[in-house]
Amino acid sequence: MEHVELADVKVTVLASPQLRDRVRAAYTMTHAQENHRTFSEFVCSLLEAEASRLETVYNSGHPFVGGDRSLPRGRPLG
Amino acid sequence: MEHVELADVKVTVLASPQLRDRVRAAYTMTHAQENHRTFSEFVCSLLEAEASRLETVYNSGHPFVGGDRSLPRGRPLG
Repeated sequence: MEHVELADVKVTVLASPQLRDRVRAAYTMTHAQENHRTFSEFVCSLLEAEASRLETVYNSGHPFVGGDRSLPRGRPLG
Repeated sequence: MEHVELADVKVTVLASPQLRDRVRAAYTMTHAQENHRTFSEFVCSLLEAEASRLETVYNSGHPFVGGDRSLPRGRPLG
């Protein structure tokens, strides 16, 4: 059960339209040389590299836990 | 008119839930040390750094043009 393939999920962030356009253009003009097949794959490669960097710097190279939990919202019931 | 501030736009990519959770956890546990106030700001800093890298490597440090155009879809009318 170690490699269960779950469906991809959407990851959405807010960006200035200037940054969005700049990154889109950079992706479009370089994806062939950089070996990215989709914009998502391009961004995921950045996220993965940054997660690795943060794990190395702050957690002895181990993944942080807790990413599957949402932040608590509002006060608890009762 | 050089610094018109437009409203932020959504940038959405598809990622495996494993990567999404891993990045979320890394962000949550390090954002204070890394000086990020929101997840969007964290991701935007990665996108900006990568756009700069690609511009440096492939375009003499100049922004690529064309990011404000969508890719053409289907055949032209007429």
